[in-house]
Amino acid sequence: MSLAPRDMLAARLDRLRQAIRETGLDALAVTHLPNIFYLSNFAGSAGMVVVAGPRLYLLADFRYSAAVADLTSAGRTPPGFALVDVPGSYDEALAALLADVLAGRRVGFEAAHVPVKEHAWLTARLGAAGESAPHLVAAEGLVERMRLVKDGHELGLLREGGRLISEVARGVLRQVARPGRREREVAADIDHRMRRAGFERAAFETIVASGPNAALPHARPGDRVLSEGDLVVLDFGGVRGGYCVDLTRTVALGSPSPEAVRIYRAVAAAQDAALGSVRPGITADRVDAAARETLAAAGLGEAFGHSTGHGLGLEVHEDPRVGRLRPEGPPPTVLEAGMVCTIEPGAYVPGFGGVRLEDDVVVTAAGAELLTDVPREAQLL
Amino acid sequence: MSLAPRDMLAARLDRLRQAIRETGLDALAVTHLPNIFYLSNFAGSAGMVVVAGPRLYLLADFRYSAAVADLTSAGRTPPGFALVDVPGSYDEALAALLADVLAGRRVGFEAAHVPVKEHAWLTARLGAAGESAPHLVAAEGLVERMRLVKDGHELGLLREGGRLISEVARGVLRQVARPGRREREVAADIDHRMRRAGFERAAFETIVASGPNAALPHARPGDRVLSEGDLVVLDFGGVRGGYCVDLTRTVALGSPSPEAVRIYRAVAAAQDAALGSVRPGITADRVDAAARETLAAAGLGEAFGHSTGHGLGLEVHEDPRVGRLRPEGPPPTVLEAGMVCTIEPGAYVPGFGGVRLEDDVVVTAAGAELLTDVPREAQLL
Repeated sequence: MSLAPRDMLAARLDRLRQAIRETGLDALAVTHLPNIFYLSNFAGSAGMVVVAGPRLYLLADFRYSAAVADLTSAGRTPPGFALVDVPGSYDEALAALLADVLAGRRVGFEAAHVPVKEHAWLTARLGAAGESAPHLVAAEGLVERMRLVKDGHELGLLREGGRLISEVARGVLRQVARPGRREREVAADIDHRMRRAGFERAAFETIVASGPNAALPHARPGDRVLSEGDLVVLDFGGVRGGYCVDLTRTVALGSPSPEAVRIYRAVAAAQDAALGSVRPGITADRVDAAARETLAAAGLGEAFGHSTGHGLGLEVHEDPRVGRLRPEGPPPTVLEAGMVCTIEPGAYVPGFGGVRLEDDVVVTAAGAELLTDVPREAQLL
Repeated sequence: MSLAPRDMLAARLDRLRQAIRETGLDALAVTHLPNIFYLSNFAGSAGMVVVAGPRLYLLADFRYSAAVADLTSAGRTPPGFALVDVPGSYDEALAALLADVLAGRRVGFEAAHVPVKEHAWLTARLGAAGESAPHLVAAEGLVERMRLVKDGHELGLLREGGRLISEVARGVLRQVARPGRREREVAADIDHRMRRAGFERAAFETIVASGPNAALPHARPGDRVLSEGDLVVLDFGGVRGGYCVDLTRTVALGSPSPEAVRIYRAVAAAQDAALGSVRPGITADRVDAAARETLAAAGLGEAFGHSTGHGLGLEVHEDPRVGRLRPEGPPPTVLEAGMVCTIEPGAYVPGFGGVRLEDDVVVTAAGAELLTDVPREAQLL
């Protein structure tokens, strides 16, 4: 696991403290694990963080004491770091800490992540302190908004991830996606190659969708045998240093039909249009529209049912969402240099098959920098 | 994916409808994905279910239309099944359905899973209908409690999973855990073997903890090279047909030290004691105590910091929790025939290493049936 340098953590915490103040809060309780890792370098499967004044309290149980000691001795804890041991329930430990150091103060909690049950329990427990109880206040997206624009440490990991996933993809296209093999065998091979290339794990369940299955954007690899004449959608991603990359190629086995070639070219053109539109200042829905209008012009508007892309980082689906504006949805994200997302238009024709092409980009001052580099043309055209 | 027969789904829904009535509700909105799969056979990565009267409404978006059509044509949808298309936001679609068919009624929601933000949005949206609005009521564990005791379909899958993970483990012990290999390489090999054996995916991040790393119960596989004299903890699990199995063995590379042998024997005795205590009517904390007291008698009470086991099923950590009673925690689960859990005591000595042994059992009328079958003795004793 590649960890953020201490000065990078310090800069993140400075920005978060400013956001906490601007939201009218005195502190923030962080329970979403990717946010905890972002702020503290702590990567446990359980844990909580409280940012209050100059302190970052990490609540963790005994299973992680050695991992925390390693962070400390490597100098990779954030400034103001304090470890709070959790002997039993995390909620008990959180309530005790808040009552102890934040009496009467306004403590934000992550309303998009904290379940109603946990919130009700904490409210009741804290309320028992009466006048001096800390007040829980719903907060939303404070850390997520910071995570939208990647810093130098993150971009380094994402560039390296993009390079590695591209290497894996080139090997997969040459050697793995072959007639006679089952979808699930191909998927297992892809996952093994990702691990051998240095990824900690797959970022999501690898998709190998052949023939008619390629018409299902979220197909699960099954027992179908790849056959001559198939279009095969291969969609996989890896996590390295905690950061996710994601790539899709579609290959034709044997000679593609004229219709397959037509669809493939339209999707490639849509991807080019979307990639060409990426630049600081444009809203993400306009990038989506660039792909969507290209496919509509080819008569494939109805065949493109999903969004053009999604943000990448500590989560494989994060902001910016590169899709259509929803009537009652949030406003679109205005792209800024340092944001990272996928560009992955597709076209799906029930009974026939489908094509999807996906690359990862970082928004730059000049437009977009591709993180992935795998030939598209060799697969079909 | 092996799917529950329709009559099994019918039986589950009958029991859930009874629980809904007994809780004073008119309907239940289910948002936790394992619960949705349990009730409907629908395995999407998004979706919602509403159980109301004789109906089970599944809310799903276009990505899953083919998967739902497959369920329907295979006769594997539950009785009363109705598909509700979700063109945009799931919460919008849920609010519209509830307003449409449950005006003025009490609708339970899964308070342990629904985030505060989503709940607030739904409450506000439904409230706009005034007097005739459906009332959201916090409900908890209605489906989880049903899932505690496995039915025939589930036990079949868990037995098959136990058999397969044992095969994988025997191969791993013979061929994979060898001096000279890095922890992460061994972990990648284990994961690949699980996939080849027919598992859909790893149930969690595989643990390969060697030498001093074996003292960390939740170590992540790293670059350390396995060496003569190491104790190596290998902890891995697979998912098949949606159901999780989980197994741990500890091996000594080369001649184990007398202290390693002593610790290993104590952990094995603790596992035997816990396994021997499993039977219907005993509380889960008593099973934990059987292991804990054995280790304490060997002077290793402090070295065993985690619980003895956890339930297995659609989630890799579910009830029953086989651990100590917590002062303010829930009452212990009374074991019943058909419950499935791990038995996995361990002992961890900082700087020295650690030992953990884990098998999966189903509670039977007679006591316990082991689902896993891997020699313990060959590894060390």
